[in-house]
Amino acid sequence: MKKVETFGEIMLRLSPPGFLRFSQTNNFDVVYGGGESNVAVSLANYGVPVDFVTRLPKNDIEECAMMEMRKRGVGVAQIIYGGDRLGIYFLETGAVSRGSKVVYDRTHSSIAEIKSGMIDWEQVFKGVEWFHWTGITPAISQGAADVCLEAVIMASKLGITISTDLNYRAKLWKYGVEPEAIMTELTSYCDVILGNEEDAEKHFGIKPEGLDITTQGHDVKAEAFLSVCQQMMEKFPRAKKVITTLRGSISASTIPGRGFYTMEKQCSNPLNTKLRIL
Amino acid sequence: MKKVETFGEIMLRLSPPGFLRFSQTNNFDVVYGGGESNVAVSLANYGVPVDFVTRLPKNDIEECAMMEMRKRGVGVAQIIYGGDRLGIYFLETGAVSRGSKVVYDRTHSSIAEIKSGMIDWEQVFKGVEWFHWTGITPAISQGAADVCLEAVIMASKLGITISTDLNYRAKLWKYGVEPEAIMTELTSYCDVILGNEEDAEKHFGIKPEGLDITTQGHDVKAEAFLSVCQQMMEKFPRAKKVITTLRGSISASTIPGRGFYTMEKQCSNPLNTKLRIL
Amino acid sequence: MKKVETFGEIMLRLSPPGFLRFSQTNNFDVVYGGGESNVAVSLANYGVPVDFVTRLPKNDIEECAMMEMRKRGVGVAQIIYGGDRLGIYFLETGAVSRGSKVVYDRTHSSIAEIKSGMIDWEQVFKGVEWFHWTGITPAISQGAADVCLEAVIMASKLGITISTDLNYRAKLWKYGVEPEAIMTELTSYCDVILGNEEDAEKHFGIKPEGLDITTQGHDVKAEAFLSVCQQMMEKFPRAKKVITTLRGSISASTIPGRGFYTMEKQCSNPLNTKLRIL
Amino acid sequence: MKKVETFGEIMLRLSPPGFLRFSQTNNFDVVYGGGESNVAVSLANYGVPVDFVTRLPKNDIEECAMMEMRKRGVGVAQIIYGGDRLGIYFLETGAVSRGSKVVYDRTHSSIAEIKSGMIDWEQVFKGVEWFHWTGITPAISQGAADVCLEAVIMASKLGITISTDLNYRAKLWKYGVEPEAIMTELTSYCDVILGNEEDAEKHFGIKPEGLDITTQGHDVKAEAFLSVCQQMMEKFPRAKKVITTLRGSISASTIPGRGFYTMEKQCSNPLNTKLRIL
Amino acid sequence: MKKVETFGEIMLRLSPPGFLRFSQTNNFDVVYGGGESNVAVSLANYGVPVDFVTRLPKNDIEECAMMEMRKRGVGVAQIIYGGDRLGIYFLETGAVSRGSKVVYDRTHSSIAEIKSGMIDWEQVFKGVEWFHWTGITPAISQGAADVCLEAVIMASKLGITISTDLNYRAKLWKYGVEPEAIMTELTSYCDVILGNEEDAEKHFGIKPEGLDITTQGHDVKAEAFLSVCQQMMEKFPRAKKVITTLRGSISASTIPGRGFYTMEKQCSNPLNTKLRIL
Amino acid sequence: MKKVETFGEIMLRLSPPGFLRFSQTNNFDVVYGGGESNVAVSLANYGVPVDFVTRLPKNDIEECAMMEMRKRGVGVAQIIYGGDRLGIYFLETGAVSRGSKVVYDRTHSSIAEIKSGMIDWEQVFKGVEWFHWTGITPAISQGAADVCLEAVIMASKLGITISTDLNYRAKLWKYGVEPEAIMTELTSYCDVILGNEEDAEKHFGIKPEGLDITTQGHDVKAEAFLSVCQQMMEKFPRAKKVITTLRGSISASTIPGRGFYTMEKQCSNPLNTKLRIL
Repeated sequence: MKKVETFGEIMLRLSPPGFLRFSQTNNFDVVYGGGESNVAVSLANYGVPVDFVTRLPKNDIEECAMMEMRKRGVGVAQIIYGGDRLGIYFLETGAVSRGSKVVYDRTHSSIAEIKSGMIDWEQVFKGVEWFHWTGITPAISQGAADVCLEAVIMASKLGITISTDLNYRAKLWKYGVEPEAIMTELTSYCDVILGNEEDAEKHFGIKPEGLDITTQGHDVKAEAFLSVCQQMMEKFPRAKKVITTLRGSISASTIPGRGFYTMEKQCSNPLNTKLRIL
Repeated sequence: MKKVETFGEIMLRLSPPGFLRFSQTNNFDVVYGGGESNVAVSLANYGVPVDFVTRLPKNDIEECAMMEMRKRGVGVAQIIYGGDRLGIYFLETGAVSRGSKVVYDRTHSSIAEIKSGMIDWEQVFKGVEWFHWTGITPAISQGAADVCLEAVIMASKLGITISTDLNYRAKLWKYGVEPEAIMTELTSYCDVILGNEEDAEKHFGIKPEGLDITTQGHDVKAEAFLSVCQQMMEKFPRAKKVITTLRGSISASTIPGRGFYTMEKQCSNPLNTKLRIL
Repeated sequence: MKKVETFGEIMLRLSPPGFLRFSQTNNFDVVYGGGESNVAVSLANYGVPVDFVTRLPKNDIEECAMMEMRKRGVGVAQIIYGGDRLGIYFLETGAVSRGSKVVYDRTHSSIAEIKSGMIDWEQVFKGVEWFHWTGITPAISQGAADVCLEAVIMASKLGITISTDLNYRAKLWKYGVEPEAIMTELTSYCDVILGNEEDAEKHFGIKPEGLDITTQGHDVKAEAFLSVCQQMMEKFPRAKKVITTLRGSISASTIPGRGFYTMEKQCSNPLNTKLRIL
Repeated sequence: MKKVETFGEIMLRLSPPGFLRFSQTNNFDVVYGGGESNVAVSLANYGVPVDFVTRLPKNDIEECAMMEMRKRGVGVAQIIYGGDRLGIYFLETGAVSRGSKVVYDRTHSSIAEIKSGMIDWEQVFKGVEWFHWTGITPAISQGAADVCLEAVIMASKLGITISTDLNYRAKLWKYGVEPEAIMTELTSYCDVILGNEEDAEKHFGIKPEGLDITTQGHDVKAEAFLSVCQQMMEKFPRAKKVITTLRGSISASTIPGRGFYTMEKQCSNPLNTKLRIL
Repeated sequence: MKKVETFGEIMLRLSPPGFLRFSQTNNFDVVYGGGESNVAVSLANYGVPVDFVTRLPKNDIEECAMMEMRKRGVGVAQIIYGGDRLGIYFLETGAVSRGSKVVYDRTHSSIAEIKSGMIDWEQVFKGVEWFHWTGITPAISQGAADVCLEAVIMASKLGITISTDLNYRAKLWKYGVEPEAIMTELTSYCDVILGNEEDAEKHFGIKPEGLDITTQGHDVKAEAFLSVCQQMMEKFPRAKKVITTLRGSISASTIPGRGFYTMEKQCSNPLNTKLRIL
Repeated sequence: MKKVETFGEIMLRLSPPGFLRFSQTNNFDVVYGGGESNVAVSLANYGVPVDFVTRLPKNDIEECAMMEMRKRGVGVAQIIYGGDRLGIYFLETGAVSRGSKVVYDRTHSSIAEIKSGMIDWEQVFKGVEWFHWTGITPAISQGAADVCLEAVIMASKLGITISTDLNYRAKLWKYGVEPEAIMTELTSYCDVILGNEEDAEKHFGIKPEGLDITTQGHDVKAEAFLSVCQQMMEKFPRAKKVITTLRGSISASTIPGRGFYTMEKQCSNPLNTKLRIL
């Protein structure tokens, strides 16, 4: 059975227990994770063979992050080592009218300082049939964007299915580039695109056409999403499927939760949900 | 009543509870501290007016470090803001035959990226009669060493008593210099010098003369220390007092613990112990 | 910049973690706070210079309460010391159909045993432009009520703006007096009055006139509050503003939460919300 | 099988976890206990039928203390209710050179405000063959001392064996009396007396005679204790056994720990150790 | 005052704190409880004299379970000892769209291996006026079912009121029997029957007649329950009361929670709710 | 690189935090481990390729045990599934004069109910060069002893080096056999034997000859061990190395800790220490 490969940053998350504030606690809960490693863990939970590749420093904290992957059944043999540090973020959970807070401490992480050529993608992609990346990675640094491009080019050359979760992050993209050119090139290699309206607008300037998005009615919302999907499929002819997530119910379903809009040309693989470790 | 000023780095320490290893826990105990801020806290505990100056990033985690100082009664009004991050270190407490482990994540901290001129020392030293720094600070970066030198020059000019704790740290001093020249210049301004044999050797190449240090007898040890002290007092004529700490009892004292050797010319101030917050 | 002064009791709150009952835990969460010190902390969070005055015993537990204030940036230099104990209360958080429980252990606290003349209000009010007290303080003891009266008389004499949060507490007022006379005198010095219908009724016998308060319609509720406000403004001619809090939405706002009714003659200061530390 | 009755104060102990200081934690470990209730629990652990009597307020915290007794198999049916509060003490465990700290908050406890006649000792002593009290109880207040005297008189009248642990507490005995008269009267009813040299000196002015107590030799120490025991047995002719505890080994025993000196006329009961719940 | 007796299994419940998964924690919350012991605790909380009987192994963990009963005021003197182990179950609380998980580890528990004659029911029922059992106990093993039958026969003979909570558990009933015959015989001795539709169907094959249970309307639901109750009362002529619980509101009550349907011939006792320790 | 295989039971250990007793806590620390899986983890920590085989039930708790192995880098692909439960033991850590307590709840575990033929040892031993088992496994049950024998026979046939840690456990060996015959047969296949004097005596009736073991002198102790080793090497001619552990220092080594006596014919592998996860 061939495997899935995901690529991106894994970070250390530190958060006060429960609803305490940073200044009200003397211990932090510890979780190791990231968008792409979480997808890998979810797939492993479902029994899908999966491998995660990244760049990590060589120390005891990094080893904890890697152990977490290994524990969940995610392959870690392709991870490369170098650089100074694992990215960290601090999360304070909001309560009542007080919002959540995130303090990033991810600059100078090993993955942020990755350079072209550091990962041997031909080696990484042996036995791989699906490659997944997200819009977070090229947002970290020029090096990370470069390596991401190397990955999609090699995956494409080897006939591997490529999926992306666009995931626009306003707090990143700080290294002096415009997301649009980079994301357009990277996305042009993808077979499956996940993303929402904000991602489409921020990354590609695509907006729903001829619609008043503030209207509450679901049909209008649905049309808006279809408009965005359609524009994305036109922009990215290689894409066979565009998936977008809509919080709240879409139709008459009484089950609260997420709905999914899917516009597809053809569909050959079940990787169609964004899964997160709780 | 005039106050004491201390200057250095304050860090976030993250450690597994009790004797757990990094890989055996999902929460870390949180402590904010550092050599120089700990001295400030100890003095405040004894009722001495004291102020701590450093460079911090502007975020919620830094605010916790500053609140910790404020809570203990240490002045924080002179702290300057800028840079990206608060230095972090991870501490795993050893047990039985397993040693303790420290993982540093302190590169690129705000204090490491401080530059000459950022701190207005004339302003900082208003109402100050004693200034304390340690050998950790110049070991962080060229900028930190430069600012440390600005501080001792200004303190000296203003007639402020200057003390240092030599504190050699092998894991620092990575920015391409030899400690000896820098430490010799900085120490030459000091009135009171704290340090042990290792500090004297690593910072100044001073070794006990004519003595076999491996001998167990206390008198021999005492002579060795006196030799080191004498050489330091010759090297630093401005120093009125050299204090060195010797673990274990020296004389016939029945109280187990630390002993202190003091060689002094004259002594005018009670700051003669290294105190640490538990 | 002139500062705000608040006066009242700070207590130690002990509560089982999460939703455990008193009898289901062997540790209690520890919080130091009180109505008036919480207002001080909130103002400090917003950067307003603020000072808190109270009477505390001299011991390590009181010191923790004072450190909590100092940590948050609240001035504690005017606190006076004496008496035996810090007031304590035990809080068990309710769950599902089980209500919350409070067990008070606040008798004989230092503030309860305060006497006229113990606080030098002229000294306390140096550099103060706003004084805030609540209806909890005079409810504690005759001495606390007497000192509260000293405070408002002196503040008034010095031209300091005075605000009160009426805060009726049925479990207090046990020392053999009727709240009405005391509260009427104290409130007559106030420029800003915060309180709800229950406070108005219990403290001053003021009820909404000509209205059926059980009706669900918001307009009726609004009229009721306006009636209470109007009566309070007539009773207390010095008051420039009466503020009352109404839980739930008042108008067509879709955001659930609190609403505020404000009836004012003139308004010169932004202290118009009751803030609590989460 | 007849039972043992113990009488005294049960308190709530609040202590920071591990070696943290009061100011370093936001939760306290919770233990309910006291000298006399701990003896009751120890006896129950050994299967001895035992009952504990005291005076408690009626609230949820007191109920926790009582549940703790009941859980361990100690009878609580004779406890009387009244008064305002359960005594509290805060304990900070020392570490390295920092000593432990105790902050008492036990004034105005229900047992401190007990009065003669409140406990029906004839009822309490039904089915009792042994009564145990300690020197802590008469040290609390005049009322507690009075009730203690009622107890020993009634126990004596009913032919119940009486034991006491002298337990001198310098921080108590604050209510304006000298311990000697009270303790001498109370102890004169006892069959078994536990106590050390300090207890003997502080309560009865008894000192070891003709001995240099600072000498290290065990034989001298042993003689000193025998001298104290002898004087106590002369002073209290009713006492059949005087037991004193000596930390460290006395004779050539290789087992480190406590030794016990026992001087007895006759001995009929196995209650000869001070047991404490860990 | 005569007492209530309950009989069944008490287990050790182990669950990760908060919403963590089994694989995300290194400590488990510990609770000792079971359907029948929880009823005993609830009655004791209300001041009803109550006793719990079961079979337990003799070890320190069992002692904790028994202490929990004793602490809450439940009699444990009739408990018999023998067998290897206390039943355990692991509970992972669900979150968002992830369901809760229960892992049973209760095979070979002391109560599962109980045999006829082990409990002296005549002795147990001294001073008892009400006996309560549930459908969980006969589902454990043939021995447990046999002892349950002994209990109801003896209780019936002694004129004791008998109640049952049918409590169908699909994961039990594994020992090679059909629940219907056993439950029908056991229930035929009962005066009060608690249960819902699922219990009625699984235990007795009773379904609501002439009704479409999927309809949302409350009146239809109510009729369905009445139909089930009526059939149960016909099947069990000794039953004076059948009580069934309906989650959600039944009528126009605005208070969310449980409703209770009660169909009774006559009612003489207040044991009419299922109470659980939070 | 060929790998090491270890075989045995992995259990869930539940223990109160710190020095609390079972009855003083409401949460248990959770650790998954066992003699043979701990050796596997230690070897993996040193980078040795290693695999662990056992029999586990199929549930979420077992999965946690397996994740712990996987996290540490131990292969788990050969584990077989079946049976009802994972063995559990409860551990209360002693303090001062109170000893530690272990409550076993390991009967009916999946490994205890293993039968001959369940593990395909030829498959398990592919790529294996060293097999390690301990005396705990045959002590569990007849089935476990049978499978252990299958393993050593097959390992021997395949030319795999076999080591054992004799590990006598008085609380096991309950299934009606004498350890000596079983252990003698199993050990006769071993190349390396680890064990101490107690193991030698309890398993094989071997005692040190001509020596007074109670003497304190180290030389006497050393001779005693050499005597035991010699007898074991005579009894088990296949053994190339007998290793025994002696707490405390043996010779003039100044490093406190364990010493090791090794008597060897030839030695080809570095597996000569008993390592345990802290």
